[in-house]
Amino acid sequence: MTLNIGLIGAGRIGLVHAATITQRVPSARLVAVADVNEAAARACAERYNVPFFTADPHAVIEHADVHAVLICSSTDTHAPLIEAAARAGKPIFCEKPIALDLAAVDRALDAVARAGVPLQVGFNRRFDPNFERLRRAVAEGEIGEPHLLHIISRDPAPPPIEYVKVSGGLFLDMAIHDFDMARFLLGSEIEEVFVAGAVRVDPAIGEAGDVDTAVTLLRFASGAIGTIDNSRRAAYGYDQRAEVFGSKGMAQTLNNYPNQVIVSTAESVRRDLPLHFFMQRYVESYQREIEAFVQAVLEGTPPPVNGDDGRAATVAALAAKRSLQEGRPVRLREVSA
Amino acid sequence: MTLNIGLIGAGRIGLVHAATITQRVPSARLVAVADVNEAAARACAERYNVPFFTADPHAVIEHADVHAVLICSSTDTHAPLIEAAARAGKPIFCEKPIALDLAAVDRALDAVARAGVPLQVGFNRRFDPNFERLRRAVAEGEIGEPHLLHIISRDPAPPPIEYVKVSGGLFLDMAIHDFDMARFLLGSEIEEVFVAGAVRVDPAIGEAGDVDTAVTLLRFASGAIGTIDNSRRAAYGYDQRAEVFGSKGMAQTLNNYPNQVIVSTAESVRRDLPLHFFMQRYVESYQREIEAFVQAVLEGTPPPVNGDDGRAATVAALAAKRSLQEGRPVRLREVSA
Amino acid sequence: MTLNIGLIGAGRIGLVHAATITQRVPSARLVAVADVNEAAARACAERYNVPFFTADPHAVIEHADVHAVLICSSTDTHAPLIEAAARAGKPIFCEKPIALDLAAVDRALDAVARAGVPLQVGFNRRFDPNFERLRRAVAEGEIGEPHLLHIISRDPAPPPIEYVKVSGGLFLDMAIHDFDMARFLLGSEIEEVFVAGAVRVDPAIGEAGDVDTAVTLLRFASGAIGTIDNSRRAAYGYDQRAEVFGSKGMAQTLNNYPNQVIVSTAESVRRDLPLHFFMQRYVESYQREIEAFVQAVLEGTPPPVNGDDGRAATVAALAAKRSLQEGRPVRLREVSA
Amino acid sequence: MTLNIGLIGAGRIGLVHAATITQRVPSARLVAVADVNEAAARACAERYNVPFFTADPHAVIEHADVHAVLICSSTDTHAPLIEAAARAGKPIFCEKPIALDLAAVDRALDAVARAGVPLQVGFNRRFDPNFERLRRAVAEGEIGEPHLLHIISRDPAPPPIEYVKVSGGLFLDMAIHDFDMARFLLGSEIEEVFVAGAVRVDPAIGEAGDVDTAVTLLRFASGAIGTIDNSRRAAYGYDQRAEVFGSKGMAQTLNNYPNQVIVSTAESVRRDLPLHFFMQRYVESYQREIEAFVQAVLEGTPPPVNGDDGRAATVAALAAKRSLQEGRPVRLREVSA
Repeated sequence: MTLNIGLIGAGRIGLVHAATITQRVPSARLVAVADVNEAAARACAERYNVPFFTADPHAVIEHADVHAVLICSSTDTHAPLIEAAARAGKPIFCEKPIALDLAAVDRALDAVARAGVPLQVGFNRRFDPNFERLRRAVAEGEIGEPHLLHIISRDPAPPPIEYVKVSGGLFLDMAIHDFDMARFLLGSEIEEVFVAGAVRVDPAIGEAGDVDTAVTLLRFASGAIGTIDNSRRAAYGYDQRAEVFGSKGMAQTLNNYPNQVIVSTAESVRRDLPLHFFMQRYVESYQREIEAFVQAVLEGTPPPVNGDDGRAATVAALAAKRSLQEGRPVRLREVSA
Repeated sequence: MTLNIGLIGAGRIGLVHAATITQRVPSARLVAVADVNEAAARACAERYNVPFFTADPHAVIEHADVHAVLICSSTDTHAPLIEAAARAGKPIFCEKPIALDLAAVDRALDAVARAGVPLQVGFNRRFDPNFERLRRAVAEGEIGEPHLLHIISRDPAPPPIEYVKVSGGLFLDMAIHDFDMARFLLGSEIEEVFVAGAVRVDPAIGEAGDVDTAVTLLRFASGAIGTIDNSRRAAYGYDQRAEVFGSKGMAQTLNNYPNQVIVSTAESVRRDLPLHFFMQRYVESYQREIEAFVQAVLEGTPPPVNGDDGRAATVAALAAKRSLQEGRPVRLREVSA
Repeated sequence: MTLNIGLIGAGRIGLVHAATITQRVPSARLVAVADVNEAAARACAERYNVPFFTADPHAVIEHADVHAVLICSSTDTHAPLIEAAARAGKPIFCEKPIALDLAAVDRALDAVARAGVPLQVGFNRRFDPNFERLRRAVAEGEIGEPHLLHIISRDPAPPPIEYVKVSGGLFLDMAIHDFDMARFLLGSEIEEVFVAGAVRVDPAIGEAGDVDTAVTLLRFASGAIGTIDNSRRAAYGYDQRAEVFGSKGMAQTLNNYPNQVIVSTAESVRRDLPLHFFMQRYVESYQREIEAFVQAVLEGTPPPVNGDDGRAATVAALAAKRSLQEGRPVRLREVSA
Repeated sequence: MTLNIGLIGAGRIGLVHAATITQRVPSARLVAVADVNEAAARACAERYNVPFFTADPHAVIEHADVHAVLICSSTDTHAPLIEAAARAGKPIFCEKPIALDLAAVDRALDAVARAGVPLQVGFNRRFDPNFERLRRAVAEGEIGEPHLLHIISRDPAPPPIEYVKVSGGLFLDMAIHDFDMARFLLGSEIEEVFVAGAVRVDPAIGEAGDVDTAVTLLRFASGAIGTIDNSRRAAYGYDQRAEVFGSKGMAQTLNNYPNQVIVSTAESVRRDLPLHFFMQRYVESYQREIEAFVQAVLEGTPPPVNGDDGRAATVAALAAKRSLQEGRPVRLREVSA
């Protein structure tokens, strides 16, 4: 059984999914692609042998051969396209975040609920072997009851300043992955956040009203305490680590490297830099999240990361943003209610 | 040239210093020891061949052969003994903290200033090869301008509950080392703290009015942001790590282990647990801090960790305590003024 | 431009290549498959959508649509199939070893030379990122002139005893990869070998006339000295490491692991076992060796691992076998001449 | 109870022991020191507060206050001084090797046996925490029955060429520690050695009739196989590792480092070089071997490393030398009989 997928958005992440579906997921087939830039849609169609391309996302959603829709277009289009796909009764995979404001998220989730279609949100890091193993250490009690959590999430370089301006900022664009990871690792809801943020990487980011460096302190419903460390620029590349400390021990995940070679000379004992960015670092997780989505749709089981997960991460990000603005701890229910 | 030292307090840390002076610091000699428990003073004197012992600390301070005083008695006696030693014109090494309230600290430091005697505070971790190397990475610009700092400081087991009650609590007793380490590593003053604390290890600690698990968020004068992670009980032993992230890179120190052996079997790839507690982990730092004190006194140079350092860490600890009580960020100047 | 490949042999390694070509090498297409067990050929054809299958390898070699031949059948058929493919003027990729006796190797290489077709031998480990990086450390002078080399190559479990009997034994079947790796890493020819072998894993292997545990000492034309450590059974899984020591330093490669998670509990500080066997460990190298072959054929450039490499490793393996039998150092020219 | 020790030889290693006894072994006291260079004896006496010094080793041996003798003079004097101390009925600690020729070793051991005095040989590495833990992994069955052993033992720089000429060469001077370690780790006797040696570090070493680079293949009575890798110059410092592979797993020890700091920059992920040489790397083992000797003498129990251990390592070294000269495997009984 094969799932015919229609892709909306043939930008960077859309092309990652197109490659994954075509080359690595035998149970799925890419049958249609849309991009507001029609040339991008055509290029994608040619490269991955997709029979139909268009500038109109609705033409994909409504295409008779399309069983499920992958939404990879710009963030502001996510919620309306989810609603459209839900109305069309098509299963949906949507990149994070669902929307930058909660009202839009809720409208989209309502549409999904009414239509009864499955929705998976693109928190791919849950499917990364490192974080999956960390979650397993927690879930299986290997380290006892979790007390403390630390997530390090630093990019190798900031995105273009134009993107920073429309992306929703550090918390809604970048740290949203980390809010989801925090919930995933501990299996508990975030109740309160307190943010210390700064502009240390690029003054232009500050001028755009955002920060590029931040530590977010988290309190969980379970009583656990956590931190998220974000920077837009790590000189040594992509830094993606986490540590959970519990009553019986501690589990931590280190970075991934391109090779396991250590060179010792008169200067130092050294290795090459970690995998540079998400395209290299998370390649396996992209495959596995799509496999999980395809399997869930084909088997009629609930997707492993759903709309509530997407909403919860957004709520945390919005609370973090408010904490930064107001210089005080913010409870998530202040934002969510 | 040899420095004759009088030791006040022959408890756990006093005996560490007695052994260090006797066996590892040829330029110093232990010539007198006092302990309110005279039997403890006698036992120390016999074990380390000390010619004079007494139950009266002032008999040590005023002893003609004593060139310098080491104060290792209970915390509440530190400040008055510093004042007495200062009046006697003797150089002072005092264990941390100077006092649990700032007025007492300030009276002691005033006495020291008036007497013009050198005072070194026992922040031994500054002399640990790992933290010293980390400081060097920052000071020499190896990782650029510091943006973020993380300190992990977890004990293998909580102290007896009776000790918890009089020690000043997690922040003044345990985290005070970490506040000093934060200042030391970044070379910048802490301006604000925000604490999330919890009782996760032992309810009795909560009943005693303290927490046993805490994350403290720090803001520095330099603009850097930091965290301190404290737990009274790590199942795997003493956990003493730190990481500084800067504009040009990152330096982190891992734990010390009793050996470098890795065993791979059908179950796992594993090593033995880290060095269990401070007596093993920091043995080298205790020697080096005493050497530094002896050298400073003999050469007439300022001690490398002084009364202002002792005061600053206490201020941070008091601010942390208030942040915990009031659930809000607290600026250090609120406490210090 | 696409290379149409015909596969001969649909066993374990044949299926690895079939999957690689189909899913990961867009510039190649699998157009025919043969296996003496026709059901295996059919199953492979169905799974990977191959238009033609047969029990007759010559039907693949002579198939008009087949541009190049992949020989993955049993070792005794390699040499005659190489000759047949060479006569048909088709580029050849052949699994190691070319043959168990040197006369057969030489006949095959003569046929290849006469036909002027490209031949690549399946020493996939050269394409592994770890070994490639190690080679680079040597080739670019990062560690100076090589003095010493150590290769550790241990399997998680011995093959079935029936396979042991026909495989040519430890040196021709298993260590042949390591002889190639030794030549590849140092860029110098092996001149002499001395073997210490033993039966420690399974007495049945000894009864079959083979050893299951061996250390081979190597002398290179460059003056370097090396060792190869082989065992048929490592309790902890697949162990594939190497180290080159030179005048300016040392480069070593460690094993690959399924994740980067470290778990610390009251018992130990541990991680999961290394990737279990070659299918997991070398998956990337299989893709890259096929890509290299396809590219070489399409561009008309020489393949990166050729018949001489295949022959040299066989000569070393035969010399090792003789050293084991005669208990003395054996020069490769004794075997090769 | 205190053991009064007389030291013979106040050179490099003699001073290490003098410092150890004086500062770190409370149950021992240094009461006499001899050196053929009387100024060296005097300097040592002054530095470590030793009441008696002399140019005459026999004056130390026969000194009434001397309970036990430490022989740290040049290798050629070891055997005759052992004999003299044995005749004087004094317990003996002697640096390795006992002698460069076996007849001298046997005469010395005979004298010791006749006198019934304890003799400990200075194989300090057995007391190193890493190697001790490795031995424990083997002795306690953690890795099952040992099959394979590898020892890496590389110095940071060759000794002065004048020392090379008289030291007995690479095998008797440097590798003798490794032959002892091999016996210690496996708990089995070496039966045969085969050496591949080369001059790669300094031609002057070759002109002096020695090699500076060697791999020695070992066969043990237990059936295990091992290698020793020696180089006189590792660019990155002292390299002291070992690995034992057995039926149930593998235990390996890595190097010791001055700190646990890792620095990640745009260039690499690196740490400082390993501890540079034996004075830093083995400081703990020197203390523990002296403690073991003092305890054995005071308690009347056999020393943990005895004359037979000293002899066995010498036999292995002599066999290795012959293997190098004759280019063939040499059984130890050829040398020993």
